[in-house]
Amino acid sequence: MQIALTPLEFIRRARKLYGGLEAVIDEDSSYTYAQFFERCDRWSAALQHLGLRPGDRVAYIAPNTRAQLESFNAVPQIGAVLVPINYRLTADDFAYLINHSGARVVCADYDYLDAIDCIRPQLKEVEQFIALNTERHGWLNYEKLLQKFPPSFTPANVQENDLLTINYTSGTSGKPKGVMITHRNAYMNIVGTLVHVPMSTTDRYLWTLPMFHCNGWTFVWTVTAVGGAHICMRKAHPQTIVETIVDTRANLLCAAPTVLLSLVNCPIEVRSRLPRSVRVLTAGAPPAAATIERVEDEFGWSLTHVYGLTETSPFITICEPRPEHASLDPVKRAAVKARQGVELITSGELRLVDQNGEQVPNDGETLGEIVVRGNVVMEGYYKDPEATAQAMKGGWFHSGDGAVVHPDGYVEIRDRMKDVIISGGENISSIEVEGAMLRHPAVQEIAVVGIPHERWGEVPEAFVVTKSGASVSEGELRQFAREALAHFKVPHRFTFVDELPKTATGKIQKYLLRQGRPAISAV
Amino acid sequence: MQIALTPLEFIRRARKLYGGLEAVIDEDSSYTYAQFFERCDRWSAALQHLGLRPGDRVAYIAPNTRAQLESFNAVPQIGAVLVPINYRLTADDFAYLINHSGARVVCADYDYLDAIDCIRPQLKEVEQFIALNTERHGWLNYEKLLQKFPPSFTPANVQENDLLTINYTSGTSGKPKGVMITHRNAYMNIVGTLVHVPMSTTDRYLWTLPMFHCNGWTFVWTVTAVGGAHICMRKAHPQTIVETIVDTRANLLCAAPTVLLSLVNCPIEVRSRLPRSVRVLTAGAPPAAATIERVEDEFGWSLTHVYGLTETSPFITICEPRPEHASLDPVKRAAVKARQGVELITSGELRLVDQNGEQVPNDGETLGEIVVRGNVVMEGYYKDPEATAQAMKGGWFHSGDGAVVHPDGYVEIRDRMKDVIISGGENISSIEVEGAMLRHPAVQEIAVVGIPHERWGEVPEAFVVTKSGASVSEGELRQFAREALAHFKVPHRFTFVDELPKTATGKIQKYLLRQGRPAISAV
Repeated sequence: MQIALTPLEFIRRARKLYGGLEAVIDEDSSYTYAQFFERCDRWSAALQHLGLRPGDRVAYIAPNTRAQLESFNAVPQIGAVLVPINYRLTADDFAYLINHSGARVVCADYDYLDAIDCIRPQLKEVEQFIALNTERHGWLNYEKLLQKFPPSFTPANVQENDLLTINYTSGTSGKPKGVMITHRNAYMNIVGTLVHVPMSTTDRYLWTLPMFHCNGWTFVWTVTAVGGAHICMRKAHPQTIVETIVDTRANLLCAAPTVLLSLVNCPIEVRSRLPRSVRVLTAGAPPAAATIERVEDEFGWSLTHVYGLTETSPFITICEPRPEHASLDPVKRAAVKARQGVELITSGELRLVDQNGEQVPNDGETLGEIVVRGNVVMEGYYKDPEATAQAMKGGWFHSGDGAVVHPDGYVEIRDRMKDVIISGGENISSIEVEGAMLRHPAVQEIAVVGIPHERWGEVPEAFVVTKSGASVSEGELRQFAREALAHFKVPHRFTFVDELPKTATGKIQKYLLRQGRPAISAV
Repeated sequence: MQIALTPLEFIRRARKLYGGLEAVIDEDSSYTYAQFFERCDRWSAALQHLGLRPGDRVAYIAPNTRAQLESFNAVPQIGAVLVPINYRLTADDFAYLINHSGARVVCADYDYLDAIDCIRPQLKEVEQFIALNTERHGWLNYEKLLQKFPPSFTPANVQENDLLTINYTSGTSGKPKGVMITHRNAYMNIVGTLVHVPMSTTDRYLWTLPMFHCNGWTFVWTVTAVGGAHICMRKAHPQTIVETIVDTRANLLCAAPTVLLSLVNCPIEVRSRLPRSVRVLTAGAPPAAATIERVEDEFGWSLTHVYGLTETSPFITICEPRPEHASLDPVKRAAVKARQGVELITSGELRLVDQNGEQVPNDGETLGEIVVRGNVVMEGYYKDPEATAQAMKGGWFHSGDGAVVHPDGYVEIRDRMKDVIISGGENISSIEVEGAMLRHPAVQEIAVVGIPHERWGEVPEAFVVTKSGASVSEGELRQFAREALAHFKVPHRFTFVDELPKTATGKIQKYLLRQGRPAISAV
């Protein structure tokens, strides 16, 4: 017998089993699963009353609030497609994404109403504007609609390959692309997550990771599937994270390495309040071993490193613990944990291939591109058959990430293929150089890019953010690099900056660093 | 992107990641995963050389040996269908099942060659007879074939709804039925098991449960999926179990309650050797709370109670731990753990319905039949559309099990619907009476059935096996029952027997106990 593989199945089960448990904490309010699902059902009923039909798109621009969380149940259960938009984008970006997705309804948090009102004339296909948590002329009010409609709606007859969400990539170059995630894609990612990272009703999940980001790596449904508590948080500032963990007894969170870095570098009187029994999943960018080491040893947290892309729902690999890792000293263990690891049980097949599509050897040295085929791989890019065909050529999704495979089968990303620095015929991984330099006590953040060089073709340049109050010279950094790295990998130039350009999801925009840099002359 | 959901995907991943780990221990030999898969591949090549094509059936009659374990990989990866037959059946049964399945190849352990040779004239469709671990005239030798064929075969293009195995029910009444399990069925059961019972490369799984029994509850693939070690064992005698656990450092096993009962009742000098860090899954029949209590408190083992049927791949429910269970005293906790529990995250929807198909209330009292729809439910009975239609009426699989739902949503089986005793209009659960009587120190095993009664319609009769060396009178047992049970539930007759009639999977054949019993007169 076949029943659709969909996150809605977890919601069906959670309704039955977890009704009395705490589901959502958002600022001062708290809801049980029964109350949470009632609110979702009321919103589903309202959306149907507004004329939404299966397949219609509903766009959201909101931080990690209860209303945003509710959208992940209320929109799919009527068969509509959710478009969670990155709230850190500009009004022009909003207009592009809303129009590209063809959303009929736009829901926005109070912080984004002005931006939307400015671009209203451009949003010709949008029929309804919903203000999620405030009153505003020209906007319907979400809470009033919830009050108006009873919690009864017509459930959609969802098939597993139906579209669940469209998640736009951050677009480090060019226009953002709309990743089409099916119900089956998300279901498989959730189940795989739970196989490798067991969770239960006792888990209290802190929403540091934005929900718009790959559907909060699917935790919008994963936490519900096990009856855990969702602890909402509008902004992931280090101090707020610490206070919320203490106040709500949160014991589980997901965070990009940059968020972890901000935590380990926040004032000692703040971070010393953190409890030790917290599990953290990190993904979104390769974490430096030094960061992992501090999170595990100083905080006493248990860290799991996961890797994937929006296009893969998103998990492809997990750094699966092995008994032999446990006996390593902290520095070596952190180095192992900084590897992306091995395929999840449900994610599909990963390969590392060279330019001819041939698999590279498990030698820990030969660089290949990560390609993957499996049930977590997206249906394609929305309304973009050319980009889809390009990404899926030969029946494999091409990640654009360059990596090596170690003899134990563990994959380690060396760089985005386009960020690899080719210097005198040698590949230099910008990530390797960054990881080494992050061990310098004065370095808070660093980005290394290839700069044209007359003799070597390219050479590395480092952009450095120093820690508040710390001071270091270019000469000192060069000396530190020489001791830690092969000579040809040492940056030819160190440039001190106040901050690094980043996408809204915390990825460093290296193309901006490379732009217009003067070439380095042969010495 | 869709890739077939099949246990073969776990094998693909395990080949890549676990090649150097210990895969199989069988008597004095031990194989790594690389060696194990090489043997499987050689056997796949041999089967293809023998003319086996996708869809063809291969029958096995073997205890828990390495060769039987290999069949679960080698047969499916060429697209053929495995028919693992209960080796405890008679030669006539073997003939019926082999012919009904239309197997072209029969593989048998040395203990069963005589039986097969006797029925050879009846096996007209069988083309090849393979002796798994001995030389015999008229039989090909498995090990010689493995030596002869290199490990290269043509992998089948398996689709997820293709047939994986045919598992014949034990047939407590009537002819056995062939349960058709698809690749997707098994995949979903495995993933669900791993979500609820996390396992890893450190697990060492002891094969106490027969592999033929629902494909060893799918652990033939589950253990491989995580890179654990399979520890084979031909017979599940208590002494052998204890010795093997000690010798092989096994830390995980599955067992029907009757096997656990044999362990807790084996001599103290034997059972006192058991290590405490063992996890056990029990299913196959409702375990008595008293048995659970002893396994957990005396052995210090961690027990998980799972419920299902061959027709559901087999898991439908798991007694999911809740924080509030942990604080219960051992007796109450065992009573909670004796409940069948709640749906697994992947198993599908379970309902309890009355004779009109209406759901019964969550009152812990009203009896309903367990029905289920989900991805673990079989495709149907092989070559038996009538039995399939009967079992699947209304689009739900009808389990035949009568149960109640407690207010917390946890299901508790009261009886097979046909074993419920209706006495003076009241339902009596034979399992409840048995559970109460098992707390009497002299009672080793007990079965309670309904016997015709002039006044009450039916009344309970108890068939009792006393512990070796123990002595108890009918009057003493009646007095014990009166103190533990409502008056109308007290057995009207206690009959002492040396052993209870059981199916090969350890289920008590109550219909045999009922046959020809004299009616009980009104007093």
